Amino acid sequence: MQTTQELYSLYKEKMRKIADVKHATAVLQWDQETYLPQKGATFRGQQISTLSQIAHSLFNDDVLGATIKELHTREDLTIEEKRNVQLTLEDYEKNKKYTSEFVRRLAEQTNKTYHTWIESRKQNSFSVFEKDLKLLVDLKKQEADLLGYKEHPYDSLLNEYEKGATVILIDKTFADILPALEPIIHQILESPQPDNSFLTKYFPKQQQWDWSLYLLKKLQFDDSAGRQDLSEHPFSISFNPDDVRITTRIDENDFGNMTWSCIHEVGHALYEQGLPKEQYGLPLGEACSYSIHESQSRLWENHVGRSLQFWEHFYPQLQQKFENQLSSVNLLDFYKSINKVYPSLVRTEADEITYHLHVFIRYELEKKLIEGSLKATDIKEFWNEQYQKILKVKVTDDKQGCLQDVHWSHGSFGYFPTYSLGSFYAAQFFAAAKVQIKNLDEHLKTGNMQPLLQWLRLNIHIKGRMHTSEELCRTITGSGLDARHFIAHILDKYHTIYTLS
Amino acid sequence: MQTTQELYSLYKEKMRKIADVKHATAVLQWDQETYLPQKGATFRGQQISTLSQIAHSLFNDDVLGATIKELHTREDLTIEEKRNVQLTLEDYEKNKKYTSEFVRRLAEQTNKTYHTWIESRKQNSFSVFEKDLKLLVDLKKQEADLLGYKEHPYDSLLNEYEKGATVILIDKTFADILPALEPIIHQILESPQPDNSFLTKYFPKQQQWDWSLYLLKKLQFDDSAGRQDLSEHPFSISFNPDDVRITTRIDENDFGNMTWSCIHEVGHALYEQGLPKEQYGLPLGEACSYSIHESQSRLWENHVGRSLQFWEHFYPQLQQKFENQLSSVNLLDFYKSINKVYPSLVRTEADEITYHLHVFIRYELEKKLIEGSLKATDIKEFWNEQYQKILKVKVTDDKQGCLQDVHWSHGSFGYFPTYSLGSFYAAQFFAAAKVQIKNLDEHLKTGNMQPLLQWLRLNIHIKGRMHTSEELCRTITGSGLDARHFIAHILDKYHTIYTLS
Repeated sequence: MQTTQELYSLYKEKMRKIADVKHATAVLQWDQETYLPQKGATFRGQQISTLSQIAHSLFNDDVLGATIKELHTREDLTIEEKRNVQLTLEDYEKNKKYTSEFVRRLAEQTNKTYHTWIESRKQNSFSVFEKDLKLLVDLKKQEADLLGYKEHPYDSLLNEYEKGATVILIDKTFADILPALEPIIHQILESPQPDNSFLTKYFPKQQQWDWSLYLLKKLQFDDSAGRQDLSEHPFSISFNPDDVRITTRIDENDFGNMTWSCIHEVGHALYEQGLPKEQYGLPLGEACSYSIHESQSRLWENHVGRSLQFWEHFYPQLQQKFENQLSSVNLLDFYKSINKVYPSLVRTEADEITYHLHVFIRYELEKKLIEGSLKATDIKEFWNEQYQKILKVKVTDDKQGCLQDVHWSHGSFGYFPTYSLGSFYAAQFFAAAKVQIKNLDEHLKTGNMQPLLQWLRLNIHIKGRMHTSEELCRTITGSGLDARHFIAHILDKYHTIYTLS
Repeated sequence: MQTTQELYSLYKEKMRKIADVKHATAVLQWDQETYLPQKGATFRGQQISTLSQIAHSLFNDDVLGATIKELHTREDLTIEEKRNVQLTLEDYEKNKKYTSEFVRRLAEQTNKTYHTWIESRKQNSFSVFEKDLKLLVDLKKQEADLLGYKEHPYDSLLNEYEKGATVILIDKTFADILPALEPIIHQILESPQPDNSFLTKYFPKQQQWDWSLYLLKKLQFDDSAGRQDLSEHPFSISFNPDDVRITTRIDENDFGNMTWSCIHEVGHALYEQGLPKEQYGLPLGEACSYSIHESQSRLWENHVGRSLQFWEHFYPQLQQKFENQLSSVNLLDFYKSINKVYPSLVRTEADEITYHLHVFIRYELEKKLIEGSLKATDIKEFWNEQYQKILKVKVTDDKQGCLQDVHWSHGSFGYFPTYSLGSFYAAQFFAAAKVQIKNLDEHLKTGNMQPLLQWLRLNIHIKGRMHTSEELCRTITGSGLDARHFIAHILDKYHTIYTLS
């Protein structure tokens, strides 16, 4: 009989190999979004697909399965090892529920749906998209059944992105949030709006790029363990904690476009750079969950990068770099303008308050799709109605409407709620940080990000998947997710920007 | 029983998958040389190694073996299909000669030797390198025995890079070349030397970069199917014919450094862009051999990029772009200076004549090492003696001496001769092109590269590995490799630059 140590070594070795293949795939994807020449797309798609299949079959390996199952019975594992084995076993068993026939059909339909989505956006027409989307939704319903669930079929899809998330929990979270947000938004819209027209002056590309590199450095991004490049849509991606990459885009007529997406992506990247290297390939070497990942990007973007403290330090430097554009705008006006709230059509351009209305609409829509109370062909109608009702905006075309997000074309149903959960966790974490870090405000005011980063490293990053999102939140803040922290943050912040009673 | 078509499809599918993994590895290697952040090297090395192992085991697959063997007996294959099967079978059977234990030992020692080489260069000391190099040479001798050979153990290593190459053939080629080159070099060194000091004026980086992109375009490099980046050492690499990448480096105080390495790499890249896409993953989708690959880079670099015709068109434009540096230098002086011949210490900086003396020394040295008549510990002594005797230069330190090339640290014994063979093939091909392409000189003088490229596409690129180097040469030129074409080229060219009798 093999010793526990031998078995654990075998398990680690096999998981490392799978991680190598997955990260190689990630390099190919990064390259696809940054430097791939136009004609290279076809072969690249094929190469990515081959690597994905290899990673899949390496994980489906019977020897690996037997090793995990045997390890699961052993008593002489450390608590970290136990956790790794437990999580891997859960993933392994979930994976086994998929027949290869189903995986093939899902991959084919997803691929097809993505291309149809591209085409439908070109034609600005949901009707081009709806047939393939319907077929994909049907498959996702089958997937929900195949994975199994207790209360709601959508729960099983939510669980793909957020272990433990359920319709009951998310319904409750939104029920806590929305009635509180409604009067705030109402009052904001009744108040005078800050003038943010200077943000759309001409900000030259090279100067914006230099500014972004300066920000990265100041935000403690380790550029010997990562880099920034340009791409059409900003993203962050990790090949290991020593090689974490982000991308940004620069609009010369929209200063905000680059700056806050850059800070957002750095938040993701700092998390990945802080994961424990020695757990590479194992669950404890991975981020806790999608919502906790998002909590890091939102914390840096909204609680730091849109705060008055942060700009007290950085605004004079920004003014120096962009003298023509900003010399006549004072700090307070700048601060107000970068926090302007106004309901709009596009989620990715939304402010930190109305953003959650966009997510809520998608969540409701997906829930209904998966439970079967909404037909895929009725998405557009539902979408436009809800935007009118909840955000009070009229959708004028599909590209700015129900075709705006890539997620469904990828088959990612259940993903959107993690954006809101992430924001709410961020507010709760930041509230705890303010209590636990001495003089945090002072540090931010002097541009010293080190204490906050160290706190996040210690409390979140280094722990990998040791805890669930809820356990992690409880460990750090003393309670599970409590969206009242988010409301408190909003009230505290926006009463200095708008007239709130 | 499976039909031939079914078997061939299975074979193609398996080969395509292997190619996908190998090309994914190539993307990782490209990234390593261009954009990898400093700390990323360790995990990247591991990821590359994992993919290599996967590609290796996919090729070692018994089902693939049985399929190829069965296909090899079938009569109803096209001539192209037969050739694919034949070459794959040869590779497969060669591969089977390696025990996994030997592969492991070789990989480990190679990795170790590479790092020792890096260290030995830092310390500028061959003695740091010699112990690991000796162990690697011992393994390469074992490899030669394991692969088998008829006449000389070095033949089996030569065959790794150039199928059919033997000590007898290469000895003969050098015996044809060297006595003819000797008096030419002697006369050149007795002649007045052109002044090329203007080439080391200050040429700003961005302007050089723009110039290189312009050259790429003019040389018909398809930038929708490839790209250029910067790296420490220029190289070309292909992920498929629709994605071929080259790199360059820019020395602001040495104009030649970038320009001719750029033209050289484009030569390689044009070959890869011209390979038949539909044969992706199969031998017919690969370049004929290392020497034919080198023939393409050398043809463009030396026969086009260092010719008077080429610069008749491009020099006025170059002068415009670098007015301060070049306005006082006329075309003929420019042409002479870029073809200056002088024996030097470093192979990669050598002119197109003395270059082959560098290769010859390495060839002789490797031959002796593998046959056992030279000990690895005596390499430095042999090297320095030969450079004194043949190139008449005194080696003053190891970094500029026997530590200058990366090849041995990679275990690439048998590679160097392909550089010379490539040059000699280039001369023979270019001589044929001049006869077969109407008004080639006129086309080059007007900057029209299309006719030459089309001729190379048709006669060489599109054929992949359909023929051996020698067969290909015979098909195009009517005879096998004949180094007299190279001598004729040298005599014809250099009598206008130097006083030759």
